[in-house]
Order: sequence, then C-alpha cells, then structure tokens
Amino acid sequence: MGKSEKTENAGMYWIWYPGDMELYHGMKQNFSRVERGLGWPAFWKSEGWRNRVVFARTYELEAETDFAVYTSEDTSGYVLVHRLDTESERDVALTEKKGGFGNRITCGPGRFTVIIHLGSLTRFPAAYVEGEVIYSDGSWMAGDYDKDSVPCGTSRYFTDPAQDPAVFPYAERVYAPLSVEEVRGGVLFAFETELTAQIEVTSQTQREVQVFPGESRAEALDTKMCYNQFTLKLAEADIGYYSARTPRAAVRYVYLPGVTADEVSVRAIHQYVDIPVRADFASEDGQLQQIWDVAAHTFRLCSDVFFLDGVKRDRWIWGGDAYQSLFVNRYLTADADIERRTLLALRGNDPVTTHVNTIIDYSMMWILSVEEYYNTYGDAAFVRQIFPKVKSMTDLLLSQREGHGFLVGRAKDWTYIDWADFDREGPLCAEQMLLAASLSAEARLQQVACGSECRRRDPAIREELLRRIDEKYWDEGQQAYVDSFVSGRQNVTRHANILAILFDLVPEKKKRSIAEHVLLNDDIPAITTPYFRFFELDALCRLGYLDQVLPVIRSYWGGMLEQGAVTFWEEFDPDKPADQQYEMYGDPFGKSMCHAWAASPIYLLSRYFIGLELTAPGGQEYRVQPQLAGFRPFMCILPIGGSGQMLQLRWDGEAAQYEITRDEG
Amino acid sequence: MGKSEKTENAGMYWIWYPGDMELYHGMKQNFSRVERGLGWPAFWKSEGWRNRVVFARTYELEAETDFAVYTSEDTSGYVLVHRLDTESERDVALTEKKGGFGNRITCGPGRFTVIIHLGSLTRFPAAYVEGEVIYSDGSWMAGDYDKDSVPCGTSRYFTDPAQDPAVFPYAERVYAPLSVEEVRGGVLFAFETELTAQIEVTSQTQREVQVFPGESRAEALDTKMCYNQFTLKLAEADIGYYSARTPRAAVRYVYLPGVTADEVSVRAIHQYVDIPVRADFASEDGQLQQIWDVAAHTFRLCSDVFFLDGVKRDRWIWGGDAYQSLFVNRYLTADADIERRTLLALRGNDPVTTHVNTIIDYSMMWILSVEEYYNTYGDAAFVRQIFPKVKSMTDLLLSQREGHGFLVGRAKDWTYIDWADFDREGPLCAEQMLLAASLSAEARLQQVACGSECRRRDPAIREELLRRIDEKYWDEGQQAYVDSFVSGRQNVTRHANILAILFDLVPEKKKRSIAEHVLLNDDIPAITTPYFRFFELDALCRLGYLDQVLPVIRSYWGGMLEQGAVTFWEEFDPDKPADQQYEMYGDPFGKSMCHAWAASPIYLLSRYFIGLELTAPGGQEYRVQPQLAGFRPFMCILPIGGSGQMLQLRWDGEAAQYEITRDEG
Repeated sequence: MGKSEKTENAGMYWIWYPGDMELYHGMKQNFSRVERGLGWPAFWKSEGWRNRVVFARTYELEAETDFAVYTSEDTSGYVLVHRLDTESERDVALTEKKGGFGNRITCGPGRFTVIIHLGSLTRFPAAYVEGEVIYSDGSWMAGDYDKDSVPCGTSRYFTDPAQDPAVFPYAERVYAPLSVEEVRGGVLFAFETELTAQIEVTSQTQREVQVFPGESRAEALDTKMCYNQFTLKLAEADIGYYSARTPRAAVRYVYLPGVTADEVSVRAIHQYVDIPVRADFASEDGQLQQIWDVAAHTFRLCSDVFFLDGVKRDRWIWGGDAYQSLFVNRYLTADADIERRTLLALRGNDPVTTHVNTIIDYSMMWILSVEEYYNTYGDAAFVRQIFPKVKSMTDLLLSQREGHGFLVGRAKDWTYIDWADFDREGPLCAEQMLLAASLSAEARLQQVACGSECRRRDPAIREELLRRIDEKYWDEGQQAYVDSFVSGRQNVTRHANILAILFDLVPEKKKRSIAEHVLLNDDIPAITTPYFRFFELDALCRLGYLDQVLPVIRSYWGGMLEQGAVTFWEEFDPDKPADQQYEMYGDPFGKSMCHAWAASPIYLLSRYFIGLELTAPGGQEYRVQPQLAGFRPFMCILPIGGSGQMLQLRWDGEAAQYEITRDEG
Repeated sequence: MGKSEKTENAGMYWIWYPGDMELYHGMKQNFSRVERGLGWPAFWKSEGWRNRVVFARTYELEAETDFAVYTSEDTSGYVLVHRLDTESERDVALTEKKGGFGNRITCGPGRFTVIIHLGSLTRFPAAYVEGEVIYSDGSWMAGDYDKDSVPCGTSRYFTDPAQDPAVFPYAERVYAPLSVEEVRGGVLFAFETELTAQIEVTSQTQREVQVFPGESRAEALDTKMCYNQFTLKLAEADIGYYSARTPRAAVRYVYLPGVTADEVSVRAIHQYVDIPVRADFASEDGQLQQIWDVAAHTFRLCSDVFFLDGVKRDRWIWGGDAYQSLFVNRYLTADADIERRTLLALRGNDPVTTHVNTIIDYSMMWILSVEEYYNTYGDAAFVRQIFPKVKSMTDLLLSQREGHGFLVGRAKDWTYIDWADFDREGPLCAEQMLLAASLSAEARLQQVACGSECRRRDPAIREELLRRIDEKYWDEGQQAYVDSFVSGRQNVTRHANILAILFDLVPEKKKRSIAEHVLLNDDIPAITTPYFRFFELDALCRLGYLDQVLPVIRSYWGGMLEQGAVTFWEEFDPDKPADQQYEMYGDPFGKSMCHAWAASPIYLLSRYFIGLELTAPGGQEYRVQPQLAGFRPFMCILPIGGSGQMLQLRWDGEAAQYEITRDEG
C-alpha cells in the first residue's frame, strides 16, 4: 500500500504489541551470523512475535477529524471505527465503518473508538496512524487474543510512516580507506578503525570480486580462513561505473584478491544505531585516555539494536554479556532504550519454558538486569510492563529446585557460570548465589510494579535458601564457599565467593575474609575469562581494593593497546605476541577483536575511581566519592543515571572539584 | 539456493518440526479472508511455528555415500556430519564437517549422524535431503530447543526438492464458462458449478478490468456489494495477448463491467487439493441422487488444505465445523491426511492458554475430534504424537471449573454452543455435557497413547461431574436438562439434551424419554442453525427415528435443490424465495452458498440408512445394518474407515445385498 509523503511528525509513532519489535529484530540479529558463507542461527529456542494483534484507542472528539492508517508490509487487516453510546458509555457499535489502509477516514464529533486489526505471517504487525487529533503513540492499547490489553510498544527510531518496521533504520557514515596496498596479487584497504559497515566496491568494468573483510590485517589476507567472505557481482550504478555492497560486517581491513589498485575502489558504509555518548573523559595520562577512548569505541560498536557480545562474532544477544553491558552503559550513554530493547529480546514470551540462551545463570542475570535497569532509570512503567515475566522466570527457576532445596539445571539447560574447572557434582554453589540475588531483585521489582496490589513471594524462601547455602557450601576452615556439597571434595573456586560479595549475601566481615582467603589468594585458580574477571574486579573495588585494580586496568587493557588494539578483545593473553592473538575456539580467526565485555574500564573508572554511585533509582540520589590518588590531571563528564543531570568533575592531580549540571542533549 | 533438477523420488519427503507445516498453512488460511478488498484475519490467538529447529538422523553406512540438503526459501543454517565412535557409541564428534545447502556432502563408511540446523523469520524451516542412502523422511527426528526430540513431520504433497514448502501445491483444472452474457454494459460469465478458482482474463488490448466473482448471479452483478472484488491489470502474455489472474476465490458467476464479450475472454483455473473420493452412490431416486452429488461437491470444495467452513466465507478453520466434517469425510474420502492437518492447525502449541477459535466448546470438540480420527483410522502413532496436547487441553478445561465443579468460560473465552436463547446465568449445561464426553475421549486416547506407561486421570472426576450434572441440571418434571441451575428459571433448550444422547451420558431409557419430551416436542424452541441441526438429526437417528429424519433430508436439502442450489448453503429458510437467500449477518451476500456442514446427508445416509458403522478403530470391525424401507433402488460403495476395505451395497427396492472388497485406489 502507498505510504504518506508526509515527513515525520513529532509525537507520532509506529505502534506494535509491546515486545514484538524486539522479538522480531532480536531473532533477526540472532539468525544473522554467517561463518565463511554458512548461516549459523543461534542455538536456543527462538521466540516469535504475535502474528495477530489488535490496537485500539478511544477519543472524545469535539469536531470532525480525519486520519489515515499505514501498516507494515505483508500485513492484512482493517480499521474499525466504533461510535460509542455516550449516554451509557457501553461499547456498542452504533455506526461501524470499516476502512482500509492509506485512505483518509473521517469521524467525530462524539466519543469514538478506533480499532486496528492486523495479521501477518512474516513479520510483526505494526501500524502508523497519521492525523491531527487521532494518531498513534504509546497511549494506544494492544491485544493479542490471549492476555489483557497492554499499552502499545513504540520506539524513537520508528516515527516515519514511510518506514518498514521490519527494517531497522541505521544511521550511516561513509569511510574512505586510510591506505591502499597492493599485496599478493590483490589489494588491501585499511580503515582508521574497526567499523560495522557495508563494503562498497566500485569499478569501471562489470566484474565479480571477492571481498575479505578482516578485524586484522592477517585475517583479511587469509582468503581461506577469513571469517567473513563475500562474492560481489558489480552492477551498473552510473554511466561507466559498476558497484555493489556486501552485507554489513565487522571490518578494519578489507582484501580484494586478483585485482589491482587501479581497477577498484572501496569505501565502507558504516551503519550504526545513533546513541549519543553522554560521557566525556580528557586526561593528561595518555594510557588511561586511550583505554577510555578505545573502550568507548568498542562499546559503541557493540551497542547495536541490542547489546551484542561482539561485532564479528557471535553477533548474538547473550544474557550474561548484556548484564555486564548495563554497567558500562550507565556511565557512557545512559540510553534506556537499548536496555529495554535488549531485556525484551532476551526473555521471549510467557509461559516461559526455557532459559535465556538455554543458560540458567543467564535467566537469573536477566532478572538482575531488570533491577539494574530500574536502578539506572527509575522507570517504574517499564517495570510494571515486564514484571509478569520476572515473576514467571522466578517461578520457573524455583520449580527446578530439587529435594535438597537447590536449583539444578534440567537435561537441556546449560549450567554455565564460567569456563572453569568447577566441581559439578550436584547443584553448583554459584547458581544458588544467583538465585538468592534474583529473589531479592524480584521482591524489589514486585514492590515497584504493584506494591501491595499483587501477592508478594514469601520472603522465607530466600531466607531458607541462604541458610541452606551457608549450611551446605560454607567451609569454615577455608573461609570460602565450595562448589559442591555432594562430592566431599570441598573444591574452592572464586566464582560463588565473588557473587556472595557482589550481591551482599554475606555480612561485611565475612566479605573481607572471603576476599583475603579467596580473591587475594594465589593458590585459588585464577579466573581465565574476561567475562568473570569483570565480576572479580567489581567485587575487589566494592571492598575498596582499588590499588589492586588500577594496575590490572593498566596492564590488561594497556597491554592490548601496546599490541595495537583499536578495539578491546574478547580475550587477551599478555604472554602471546600480537600476531598470535587472533585464535580462539580452535579457529585461527575465531576471537572477537571487538567485544562488549572488554569495555568494563569505563564502569570501573566511573563507579569506583571517579566515584559516582547512584543511591536512589534513576539517579535521583547519588554519591560522589572520588578515589584518585596517583591519577594524573583529568576532567570528565558522566551522566547521573536517568535523572537528566550530569556530573562534571575536574581532578588537578591533588584534589577533585565537581559540579552538577543539567544535560542539554 | 539452487534446487536439484531431479524429479520426485518415492520415499523422499520434505521434513519439518511436526505440526509446523500445519500451523504455517493454517495461519495463512485464517489470514486469507478478504471482504470487499479489506483483509479480515481470523480473530483468535494465531499460533506460530518454530523459527529455529534442528533435524537429525543416525546412519550405519557400509560404504561411502553422498547426499545434498535443500531448504525452504529465506532460511539460514548449516549441515553437520558427526562421525560417531563406534566402540562406545558415544555421541562424540570425531570428525565434524560443516556443509552448506545444495552441495553434495560425502560420508561413510561407519556410523554417522547428519544434523541440519535451520532458522527462518518468515516461514517454517524445512529440509529436503536427497541421496541414495541418506534421504529425508519421517524417520528423522526434530528438535526445537524446548521439548524432547520427536519424529519429523512430512506430507505426501511435499516430495519434490524443487517445491517451496510455504506454497501448497494445488492441483488445477481449467474451466471454460458455460455461458457468456452481455448485461448492464458488461459481460457475465457463468460456470457449470461453483469452483475455487483463479479467474484468468485475457484480452487483445492492454487494459485494466474489474472482476466480480459471485456465488450467485445476483452477487456477481452487484458491483457494490459483491463479496470478492478484484482489479486486474492485464500484462503481455504472448504476442498480441494480455492476461492476468485474480487470487483464488469462490466463483460460479463472474462479471466484468465496462467491457464487451468481444473484448475479453475468461477462464477459471480451479485449484483444489486432490483428495480422491472413495464413495460412490447411484440411485434411481433423482432427488436423493442429487442431494448426494451436491453434498459431495460441497464437501470437496470445502476440503482444502484443511476442513474449511465455507469457500467464500469465512475460509477459516473452525473447530466445530471441522468436527462435523470428520463424520462426512469418514464415508466420502476416508482421507486421514486432511484430518491430521486440521487437528494440528486447530490446536497450536503447548503450553496452551486459549481455546480453539476462542470457543470453549470447540476446544472440547477438538478433543472429541482426535477420538473420532482414531475411530476412523486406528492410527495410534498420531494419537501418541498429539496426546500431550489432548492432555494439556483437558487440563486447561478442568482448571476453569469453579467452586460448583462446573466449567465456566473466562473473560476472553467464548461460551458458544449455538446461536440460541440459552439461559446463560451461571455455567451452561451443554458445556458440562461436552466436558464429560471429553473426559471419556481423553481417557480412551490416553490408553492408546501410553497405556499403563503414563498416569491416567482419576476417573472419579468424570463420575463426579456426571453426578453433579444430574443433581443440578436434571428436571424430573420436564424430563429434560435445563440450561442453568442458578437462575431458577428451569429453561429447557434442545442442546444439552441432544449432547446427553449423542455422548451416551444417560441410560437408554432416559435417552428415549428425553427424545420424547424434548427432541420431538414442538413446544421446545426449534434448532435454528444447520450446525446444531446436524447434532439433532444424528441424535434422532441414533435412537432409530429414521422416519423423522428422511423427510427432513428431502425437504431441507431437496428444498435447496428446488431453489437451484449447485452447492449446499450455510443456512436455508424454505419460506424465503430463491432470490432472498443470499443475505446473512446483515450483509446482502453474507451467506456462504457452499458450506461444509451442509454436506451432512452423506453421513446420515451412510451411517444410518445404508447402515455402515465402524465398531473397532480403523474399521477393523464394522457392522452393516441397512434400513432402507421406502428407498428406490440404488447401489453404493463406501470406504470402511482406514481398513482399506470397501462396502459395496445394492438395494433393489426390497432387499439389500452387499459385499466387501479391497480398495484398489
């Protein structure tokens, strides 16, 4: 159907069943991975959107008015205008008028309900209502013929009736290569940094070219093992010019074999979700400055429609990675929208039967993520929307407790926690820590969502769980929680102990003893993944061991910079030389060289060194406690959660001065 | 990806997650309704297929062999070949080889598992494996990352790798119009009977034409209110010829305004699912013969990918209509496939939260339909596949019992039974009758599905329900069940009483008393819908009142024939003249003139007059008790359920002779 020629009208939004846009684009994201030409859709239950929905809103019209309804492509349906009996306000159709899409529909004066019925097999049904008085926004209600009506979903990225809501509107920036080099009978183009770009190849002859985009020079030049590989047939773009674009891919270098630099030119069409960065950091300390900048660039590349793990690989939405991204995002962009999109995409629909990414710990981190979202933005409306899913997920988790009272994964569940040598006999201690933390989060979110209006889960469940954790897993002699109480091996790993500290599951004194006996004890096997290293550094900072953490930031992240990193990596072994850094999972270019969880210095620096802590939801209250001894002079700006306020702090090398300003952005 | 040029190979099938093909095509069907240009997707929760699936099969290969995998359009994924450790038979990948689609993949000798990973946003993922030894059929297993693996679904209509499983392969037959008439400045074409056809318009000039297909002459000529309306832009089809086709629609007449008979020609491309009719009926009684023939034609038109209610309207899959279709189908085609497709499309996925078409009685008829399917075909494998959904549906129904122990619809449920003036205060008696019948059906299906291996529902639930029905709803004075025990009005309608007879919920003597006091009592309001009239006639026949039923068949169905019917109608009021028969639901052409439930004479004649009754599942045992006094001579052939046997019966006007033959079809 034809779309209106009108331009975007402030206040008008595409509307859909809440969560459907996120489930559709989330599935698209999770199915988008391609490895050397082979599609690799994510290996978990992929939840669909609603194919049949109805949107409605009632208007009191003082005069006649008109509107037009537009819908997503490949969508069937109709518009109904009910005139309501104003005497009794019964929902009886006195006049009933069916209208199609794209036509102007007139109604009023009087009390009217506009109802839009939509069905689609191939995408989430969405509508755009354009009119002076009657137009679509979050005040419309959505039904799915199952649950009670709920407010429609909207997005600031979908406000133009000419859009197709199944296509996410990326912002674009064109990059020319920094250098062009003829090598091995082909041409290698290098860009100034890593991008998520379509690669456009142009030539004066109609030809087929092979395109190898790499995160490293070595990868681009390896035409066998390069992770992304494309064949382009150039087509006439202008008189005497032939051109084509690859799909969007991670690219810093791109290699075209079998051509000369005269024959082809290349540009990168960088496509990104335009999320303004609100933080700023300007330091006289070159290394720290570069760590901040590269972390910010890494994080922005991975902040797409959703928080992704990495931009070359997996390009999937993982619950654990997303949880960590929340902490960085709080201080870098304070963008609530990407967090909501990610939370909605991860959880799927009720009734829930499987875990987030199949991983029971990720289900719990999803619950914890909702709480962190609330901490940052104080957005009670979203908590009300999503709380039923928090509750059903908690119900599922509690239903998996066995006779001993502890949570155990089912046959198809993945009991992950970390790549580490846990003693996995019986229930794993770290999972119980997350369960206790999730029960606290659920209780708090329940208060926000419905207070005394909905039944609160019996707090004795959590108390009993904590009591049993201490009874079964605490080893007084080792001053540590052990992995398993079943095996008798009393094996200590860091993970459960870190979580006990992070989620305040033990008193202050016990935290310190755990830190001494586990976290600062070199006899306990070190954490090997940057993923869990994030939690460990967070726990150390929480207990004030900042002097232990800053050297790690300098050596680990600084070490990557010394090896030439322009984005931070999925994993880093300082003992390996730069040209041996690309291998992972047995694949010579398997490692993601731009990975969200590697952006954690932004969080650690902001929260503990600059010392901005939110103490009430949305940053309505906060605390600033800089701990900057040894830092070279710098100034920084940090958003204070969703409060609209900014912290401006200046450190002159001896003392910190700060002021609070309103965000003008 | 390219598809093989190979032709269909017997034994090779497209495979999918079982039920997904039915859910996809069922949704397509339910979204296909268009009324005067406006899409009208069905107004109930529309359940989607799985977007992410995995198929697998293990082979013992004596020698090297190769195969190729094809997939549905717009589907991403890969093929994995695991070589299994033949010593321990552990599922460990000794070699792991990823292959793409369309390429030949080689493996063997040894023990191998072939795994196909697929994801699609827009359609159900399906695969076709073509090879000498390794090929796809129902022996492959399917997983959805949620439940345990189950055997893949297949269909005899999807056996060619060149097919797109999202497109159902209709058989086609081309019809030229019987007559061409210039009228009101346009041309009216008449076909010999009603069809479900694309209308092809051809002209020697490139023009735009409006096309009005009608089920009646009056409808086609009414260019304002004609239900289906199309605008065609003719495009060059051959040198000097321009042509275009409408979407498939119900058509007996087609009107093209603004053209002359010289300017255009029209043909109908009738598209149908080729289900062989196995019954035959040849009578000297012209009226009865015509009733049979028109009923058979009506039923075949409505037997599409699924049992539809009607071919112009609604073109939806309704649980109650489908339930009635089973009884006709048993005697006309005995085609098990359409029944399985319909049962799978109607129920959707577990966990179940809504009722079939939103109607609680249709949920129960769905359970009863599974039992009738088993009665006709004795197909225990399908019962095993679908029993978990029978159980979950029964659980949902039982969960809706309130304090008094009776089933009550929730706010969004439709407590239908029939368009009749029920006393709807409190739980409705007829629903409780269906619940008691459903509990019997579930118990029987449970025995077939898993015998003593799964827990049987406590039979006391049904006994207690029946006891309470009698206690609360039975009116001894009226010798009838009343609608409501809450209101005190003791209102009697026929419906609950008919169901008590049909489902053997009362002893024989009580059935006769009910028949006398309710069914044969003119003071009780008559049934007004052909839908429930089917149940009433069935109940009367069940009790032997054949002499009451045959005159109804002659007057009601014979009455439609007298008014010129070529297919039987959704509703018939003998008091109205032919040209006033098209109106329904306040729409001048709202009535469906080809409606499946109007085909019931085939069932009534076969089951009660010819007297073929299946007495063991699949027709392994049966009874033939002709009751043909007053019938003129005829011969007939009827399939005996799924037994592969046929009843051939000859009535010479005085006595019946019959023999049993094997079906050669």
